[in-house]
Amino acid sequence: MNTQPHDHIVKSYDEERQRLIGEILRMGEMSAAQLEAALDVVERRDDKAAARIIGNDEAIDTLEQEVSHDVMKLALRGPMARDLREILAALRIASDIERIGDYAANVAKRSTALNASPPLPHTRGLNALGQLVVRQVRDVLAAFAANDADAAQRVRAQDAEVDTLYTGLFRELLTYMMEDARAITPCTHLLFMAKNLERIGDHATNIAENVWFLVHGDDALPPRDKRDETNVAT
Amino acid sequence: MNTQPHDHIVKSYDEERQRLIGEILRMGEMSAAQLEAALDVVERRDDKAAARIIGNDEAIDTLEQEVSHDVMKLALRGPMARDLREILAALRIASDIERIGDYAANVAKRSTALNASPPLPHTRGLNALGQLVVRQVRDVLAAFAANDADAAQRVRAQDAEVDTLYTGLFRELLTYMMEDARAITPCTHLLFMAKNLERIGDHATNIAENVWFLVHGDDALPPRDKRDETNVAT
Repeated sequence: MNTQPHDHIVKSYDEERQRLIGEILRMGEMSAAQLEAALDVVERRDDKAAARIIGNDEAIDTLEQEVSHDVMKLALRGPMARDLREILAALRIASDIERIGDYAANVAKRSTALNASPPLPHTRGLNALGQLVVRQVRDVLAAFAANDADAAQRVRAQDAEVDTLYTGLFRELLTYMMEDARAITPCTHLLFMAKNLERIGDHATNIAENVWFLVHGDDALPPRDKRDETNVAT
Repeated sequence: MNTQPHDHIVKSYDEERQRLIGEILRMGEMSAAQLEAALDVVERRDDKAAARIIGNDEAIDTLEQEVSHDVMKLALRGPMARDLREILAALRIASDIERIGDYAANVAKRSTALNASPPLPHTRGLNALGQLVVRQVRDVLAAFAANDADAAQRVRAQDAEVDTLYTGLFRELLTYMMEDARAITPCTHLLFMAKNLERIGDHATNIAENVWFLVHGDDALPPRDKRDETNVAT
């Protein structure tokens, strides 16, 4: 068995590196699960389950702090440029996952406000958008785990579909609000929940771009189709 | 004159470090100016100026990429723990400033949608919130420039005031939408603009926490007062 000091250090760097990737994938799994649970409580109108989701968000924040610590430890070992690129990407991906968790918790929080009004038919459109976004999050985490820049690029290209669904839902909710003033408050929550889901899609796109950066460095990414037209809807 | 190689490297690290801080402060100044300009175009209903603000956002994004490059270069020099903490904080602060710029550009973008409807009295409330947030951004940048953790802590404490103003404006806009269905679309834009400003306040708070981290390391921050109640408004 080789116990040379140099080998020991090399092996230990790789162990730390694996630990970091494992933490990020665990964070990612937690955020994806939180998002699925949040979509589920909207459907089931379950305030208790919503409270659990809101409470769980802290664990993701804690894990992000652990990732930051591990990044510091790795950076202090004086990594080479390729390794440094990896830990820089890790830091950014962890930050995007943390935001995904925040948005999932906010969807759960707003669902409790929705439950103060009678059920609205529009939670179905929200769910369809949500399921698409869940798939984006799961696919980009798989691309990160597999170091697969092409798979990441496919996730990034699909963000246009998220924007299209979001824009449609946004217009539908506005129409509904105009028809029934009592629906204004719950529909406003639905608008913000839809916006949260659209933002989660953006963070999945950010992660996809960091997976690309991880594999290819700063080489230019192909241009991206953007279809969110709600910012200028009149 | 001392021209020892070691001195040369030390001086050069400090030069690179100063360059990094300068870039971040320049980014911060640009984002604060974009935010002020965005609030101004809402008041003046000036679509041309809004388009200029939207176009300017790219320069902030480019500067953030330069910061990332400079952080990589500094990290490759094998900095000590204290220096590494500084460049980690720099990276996070640059990311928060970039988001502030995005939100400012989104306020400008939505102002063009507002201009398709007759003027609403509620842009005044939006402006009051905006001016408070501008002050938060400018104060936290000054705290970063001066390495002043106490000043940063004051900015962080004032975020509760932002939340209070935002919550008030949110409720006022909902009431107005219920009274006049024609106001629903423009008021929805105002709701999202108000949310953008509230989020800018959150990013100023993040920067404040990073200035604290820079000065004190991971020592616990005092607890913070949160007063945004709009997530559960019924």
